Amino acid sequence: MDSITTIAITSIIMAGFTTGIGCLLPALSEGKAVAAALGSIAQQPDASPTITRTLFVGLAMIESTAIYCFVVSMILIFANPFWNYITAI
Amino acid sequence: MDSITTIAITSIIMAGFTTGIGCLLPALSEGKAVAAALGSIAQQPDASPTITRTLFVGLAMIESTAIYCFVVSMILIFANPFWNYITAI
Amino acid sequence: MDSITTIAITSIIMAGFTTGIGCLLPALSEGKAVAAALGSIAQQPDASPTITRTLFVGLAMIESTAIYCFVVSMILIFANPFWNYITAI
Amino acid sequence: MDSITTIAITSIIMAGFTTGIGCLLPALSEGKAVAAALGSIAQQPDASPTITRTLFVGLAMIESTAIYCFVVSMILIFANPFWNYITAI
Amino acid sequence: MDSITTIAITSIIMAGFTTGIGCLLPALSEGKAVAAALGSIAQQPDASPTITRTLFVGLAMIESTAIYCFVVSMILIFANPFWNYITAI
Amino acid sequence: MDSITTIAITSIIMAGFTTGIGCLLPALSEGKAVAAALGSIAQQPDASPTITRTLFVGLAMIESTAIYCFVVSMILIFANPFWNYITAI
Amino acid sequence: MDSITTIAITSIIMAGFTTGIGCLLPALSEGKAVAAALGSIAQQPDASPTITRTLFVGLAMIESTAIYCFVVSMILIFANPFWNYITAI
Amino acid sequence: MDSITTIAITSIIMAGFTTGIGCLLPALSEGKAVAAALGSIAQQPDASPTITRTLFVGLAMIESTAIYCFVVSMILIFANPFWNYITAI
Amino acid sequence: MDSITTIAITSIIMAGFTTGIGCLLPALSEGKAVAAALGSIAQQPDASPTITRTLFVGLAMIESTAIYCFVVSMILIFANPFWNYITAI
Amino acid sequence: MDSITTIAITSIIMAGFTTGIGCLLPALSEGKAVAAALGSIAQQPDASPTITRTLFVGLAMIESTAIYCFVVSMILIFANPFWNYITAI
Amino acid sequence: MDSITTIAITSIIMAGFTTGIGCLLPALSEGKAVAAALGSIAQQPDASPTITRTLFVGLAMIESTAIYCFVVSMILIFANPFWNYITAI
Amino acid sequence: MDSITTIAITSIIMAGFTTGIGCLLPALSEGKAVAAALGSIAQQPDASPTITRTLFVGLAMIESTAIYCFVVSMILIFANPFWNYITAI
Amino acid sequence: MDSITTIAITSIIMAGFTTGIGCLLPALSEGKAVAAALGSIAQQPDASPTITRTLFVGLAMIESTAIYCFVVSMILIFANPFWNYITAI
Amino acid sequence: MDSITTIAITSIIMAGFTTGIGCLLPALSEGKAVAAALGSIAQQPDASPTITRTLFVGLAMIESTAIYCFVVSMILIFANPFWNYITAI
Repeated sequence: MDSITTIAITSIIMAGFTTGIGCLLPALSEGKAVAAALGSIAQQPDASPTITRTLFVGLAMIESTAIYCFVVSMILIFANPFWNYITAI
Repeated sequence: MDSITTIAITSIIMAGFTTGIGCLLPALSEGKAVAAALGSIAQQPDASPTITRTLFVGLAMIESTAIYCFVVSMILIFANPFWNYITAI
Repeated sequence: MDSITTIAITSIIMAGFTTGIGCLLPALSEGKAVAAALGSIAQQPDASPTITRTLFVGLAMIESTAIYCFVVSMILIFANPFWNYITAI
Repeated sequence: MDSITTIAITSIIMAGFTTGIGCLLPALSEGKAVAAALGSIAQQPDASPTITRTLFVGLAMIESTAIYCFVVSMILIFANPFWNYITAI
Repeated sequence: MDSITTIAITSIIMAGFTTGIGCLLPALSEGKAVAAALGSIAQQPDASPTITRTLFVGLAMIESTAIYCFVVSMILIFANPFWNYITAI
Repeated sequence: MDSITTIAITSIIMAGFTTGIGCLLPALSEGKAVAAALGSIAQQPDASPTITRTLFVGLAMIESTAIYCFVVSMILIFANPFWNYITAI
Repeated sequence: MDSITTIAITSIIMAGFTTGIGCLLPALSEGKAVAAALGSIAQQPDASPTITRTLFVGLAMIESTAIYCFVVSMILIFANPFWNYITAI
Repeated sequence: MDSITTIAITSIIMAGFTTGIGCLLPALSEGKAVAAALGSIAQQPDASPTITRTLFVGLAMIESTAIYCFVVSMILIFANPFWNYITAI
Repeated sequence: MDSITTIAITSIIMAGFTTGIGCLLPALSEGKAVAAALGSIAQQPDASPTITRTLFVGLAMIESTAIYCFVVSMILIFANPFWNYITAI
Repeated sequence: MDSITTIAITSIIMAGFTTGIGCLLPALSEGKAVAAALGSIAQQPDASPTITRTLFVGLAMIESTAIYCFVVSMILIFANPFWNYITAI
Repeated sequence: MDSITTIAITSIIMAGFTTGIGCLLPALSEGKAVAAALGSIAQQPDASPTITRTLFVGLAMIESTAIYCFVVSMILIFANPFWNYITAI
Repeated sequence: MDSITTIAITSIIMAGFTTGIGCLLPALSEGKAVAAALGSIAQQPDASPTITRTLFVGLAMIESTAIYCFVVSMILIFANPFWNYITAI
Repeated sequence: MDSITTIAITSIIMAGFTTGIGCLLPALSEGKAVAAALGSIAQQPDASPTITRTLFVGLAMIESTAIYCFVVSMILIFANPFWNYITAI
Repeated sequence: MDSITTIAITSIIMAGFTTGIGCLLPALSEGKAVAAALGSIAQQPDASPTITRTLFVGLAMIESTAIYCFVVSMILIFANPFWNYITAI
């Protein structure tokens, strides 16, 4: 295989891998946080504004790690410096 | 194999892999959240509107990670820049 | 192997893989949600309409991830753009 | 190996794999749901009609993911478009 | 190896694999359901007819997934369309 | 290797594999069921006839999956249609 | 390697594998059952005859799966039809 | 493959791997911390300022490990000294 | 490698493997049973003769599976029919 | 591949691997410590200064292991003695 | 490699493997039994002679499986019939 | 590859591997110890000096195993006797 | 590679493997036993002499399995009969 | 590769592997013991001298298994008899 094909293949593989694997545990983690929030609301309904606010901050933090992975995938597909270098030769 | 075949194969494999693997834990996570919501409703029926609302926001966040994976799969199948580059040569 | 055979094989493999693996955890997750629903009904029979309704919404969300996988499988078998491209040459 | 043999082998492998793997967790999940139902009946015998009904709906949903896998297997064995294409050449 | 041998081997492997792997979790799942039933009878002896009936329906559902796997194995050994096609040439 | 040797080897491997792997979880599952039965008798000695009867039905169901595996092994060793076909040539 | 050596090796490997792997979970399962029996006797000493009897029936069932594996190993070593066929040529 | 292609491929693979794998457990860990915070607020609403502050410090510490991984990925893509050395020859 | 060496190597490997792997879970299982026995004696010192007796019967059953593995190892080292056949040629 | 390329590749791989893998459990561990701290504050708000101080010391210790990994990665990328030796030849 | 070297290597590998792997779970199991004994003594100091006696019998049984593995290792190193056969040629 | 390159590569790989893997469980273990310390302080604030002192001794012991790994990595990178021997030839 | 090198390598590998792997679970097991002893002393300080004595006997038994592994390693490095045989030729 | 290089590489790999892997569970185990000690002190502050003393003896025992691994690593790097033999030729 020539260089262009090789780099294209590698980019495709890693784009899928990074998103496919890297979103697993953030999803699990959000499920955990949401479950804990629901349990807390059921236990202490009066504190639900504080709980909801803390939950949203937490979800944002967790989502950020999933987004790191998504960003790396997008860079590999649409802004890959190695691909640009090779196709520019 | 020539370049076109290779890139086609890689795209097929990663499209299936990304969706097949990347939807596992979001599904599990939603199950966890739903289970927690049901337990909370049983424990505190009066808070069910708050619980339901929080549940739906949480499910949307979790579903988003599954959708990232699905989006990457769709990009690889229907809007793959490497495929377009190769077939355009 | 020529290109047509290679792409056919890859599509068959990924179609089976995506459905076979991607349905595992949605199934587990639905089992979890149903189990939680049954426990909640036993604990609070009066809330059973709310519980059932929430359960069905949740099952629909979870089932959606299984359906993403099934859809990708079906696309790979019956609407595969790479297969169409190759056989059209 | 020629193309016909290759595709036949791949179809056999994936048919067995998809059913063999894809039925694992639905089975586990149904066992979980049934166990929860039995525990709930023991705890609240009066709610047994509601529990049984919810259980059956849940089992149907879970069974559906096992059936997706079985359907893909059957398609690969008896209605495989790639096989038809190759043998029709 | 010629085509006939190859397909024979693949069929043997997948027949054993599908049954050997695909029966694992149904068995585990039935054990779980039976254990839950026994615990429920011990807790609420009066509900034993309902429990037994629900248990049998559940076991039938779970057994069905094991039977899917067994059926695929039997098809691969005794009614394999690819084998028939090859040996008929 | 010629065809006869290849098929013999494959049959030996799968016969051992199917029984060796496929009996693992049925055994575990029976242990679970027996343990639950013993705990239930200790908790509710008066219900021991019902418990024992339900246990035996359950063990029979679980044992059936182990027997599927054993049957496939025996078919592969003593009634293998592919072996008969090859040795009959 | 000639056919005789190949089949001998395969038989040795699978004989060891089947017994070595296939006895793992029956042993674990018997340990579980025995542990449950001991706990039950400690909890309800008066029911010890029933418990012991049920335990022995259960152990016999579990041991049977270990014996299936041992039988397959012995068949592969001392009554292997493929070996007999090859050495009889 | 020549040196440039090889280094490009390796950098792509490790960039995806490092972010994809290295963000898994930080995400899980944040989910755990958030869940604990929510549970603590529900249990002791009066201490919510202290809890929230401690939570944010903790999240920052955990996030830092995810950022180490992201930083290594970015270095490998955009500031890779080996790539610079090779392309400068 | 000639046949004698090959069979010798395979026998050595499987002898070690069968004992090394096959003794793992029996050991664990005996530990479980002993631990349960000790807990039961502490809970109900008066039942210690019954407990001890049941424990010894159970340990004998569990030990039997470890001995199956040891027996297969010894057969493979000291009474291997395939080795005898080859060295007798 | 020549020596320079080989060492470059190895350094890239290990830099990513060491950080990517080596930050997993420190992150998890910090999450555990933070969760325990939050639970402790909720249980004993008066001891929060002691808890917070102990938490920070602990986090520093845990973070140190993540930093060992990051340091090794940085050494491999920016101060690699083997790379310096090779490029200096 | 000639036969002598091959058999020597295999024996070394399996000797280390059998002891290295085969001692893992007996050790764990003894730890479990000792822990249970200590807990039982703490709970019922008066029964400590019975507990200690039962513990020692149990440890002897568990140690026996570790010794099987050690014995096989020693046989492979110092009394290996295959090695004796080869070196005697 | 020549000897120098090979040894350089091996040293790089093992330096990263030893630190990357060998720091995982010490980190987890410190997290466990810190969590236990925090829980103990919350439960018994008066004993906090003793707890803190014991914690620090324990952390030092645990850290020592992480440091063994780090030391081996540093030896492999900066004081590798095999590297010195080869480069001195 | 010649015989001497091969046997040297194998011995090195197995010496490290046997100790590296074979010390894992004894260490874990001792940790378990010590933890149980500490918990028992806290629960029943008066029984501490009995507990300590039993603990030391148990630790000695567990340590013995780690020592089996260490002994095999030392035999492989310093008293390897195969090495002696080869170097004596 | 010549013998010297091969043995050097193997020694480097096993030195890193033995320490990297073999320190994992001792670290975990010490964490467990320390956590148990802290919990015991919190529960029974008066017994803290006995607890501390028992803890230190236990930590020493556990540390010993980590030191076995470290010793084997050091032997492989600095006192390797195979290396001495080869370099002395």
